[in-house]
Amino acid sequence: MDIKRLIRTIPDHPKPGIQFRDITTLLLDPAGIRSAVTQLAEPFGGGQIQKVAGVEARGFIFGLAVAMELDVGFVPIRKPGKLPWETVGEDYELEYGTDRVEVHRDAIQAGERILLVDDLIATGGTAAAAIRVIERVGGMVDACAFVIELPDLGGRSRLEGNGRRILSICSFEGE
Amino acid sequence: MDIKRLIRTIPDHPKPGIQFRDITTLLLDPAGIRSAVTQLAEPFGGGQIQKVAGVEARGFIFGLAVAMELDVGFVPIRKPGKLPWETVGEDYELEYGTDRVEVHRDAIQAGERILLVDDLIATGGTAAAAIRVIERVGGMVDACAFVIELPDLGGRSRLEGNGRRILSICSFEGE
Repeated sequence: MDIKRLIRTIPDHPKPGIQFRDITTLLLDPAGIRSAVTQLAEPFGGGQIQKVAGVEARGFIFGLAVAMELDVGFVPIRKPGKLPWETVGEDYELEYGTDRVEVHRDAIQAGERILLVDDLIATGGTAAAAIRVIERVGGMVDACAFVIELPDLGGRSRLEGNGRRILSICSFEGE
Repeated sequence: MDIKRLIRTIPDHPKPGIQFRDITTLLLDPAGIRSAVTQLAEPFGGGQIQKVAGVEARGFIFGLAVAMELDVGFVPIRKPGKLPWETVGEDYELEYGTDRVEVHRDAIQAGERILLVDDLIATGGTAAAAIRVIERVGGMVDACAFVIELPDLGGRSRLEGNGRRILSICSFEGE
């Protein structure tokens, strides 16, 4: 199924010249949801990965569904101070200022192969920080899967390396 | 399956005297996830509801999986300024100060029957605000389903009325 046609483009949001890609219209379409979850999970089936991780907040939307499809656990990666148990964190840079992601230290066992899932990859800053924090607790991020890729922003090249596979199921380029 | 034993209790978090119920341990257990999603969805099958709604951030975790189980769309309810299209919002009171939830005006059609899903019901303040905002865009919240209920905090009675069904799959009372 063509997921791309289910994604709404909002011109000049949040500022002039930016075309915002809105997944909420995809989320209203049950067949579209099912197709997206299958496409995100299928390349990683057969025991290739042991847990799915997703970053707050939109990474939570597809994260659990993909974990269920692969029959593995789900690890939430959250903003500072949101996880109640012992955490490890990583700061990362935004256009203005910095942000931070945290993970429970006991959510991932040493050597576990992780699939990172998110709705969108733009510059890849958040995903790169999520990979670092997963590696700090001993996990190996074998793959990242995104619903939408904005290739003009070059995020993919920040995440590649160590044989890591980067998948997106649709892409908006030069639009 | 007994979901309750998969939930971690963290004593005196975030402050002395509070027993924090942590769903992240449940999320690591594939059979537990599957059972939780089935229990959240099953009472509402057979076309009884037309969309699932979930409140940012933890309500996103189970929301899409329950929507898939029911073969309906998923409506994200978000913090202020996070949704990119035209929104309707509702303020609600916290222990200190106020917060606000928003929904896309076009995410729900007039008269649609909605199931609100969240991980936990405590005082019910967030869920009550989510119900109000869904009703303002024309939806009817026929039911609410929570993984955990803290009945001592009385949230259920704030949500009942208009024949609305309130379901929780486990409960921590006087503990």
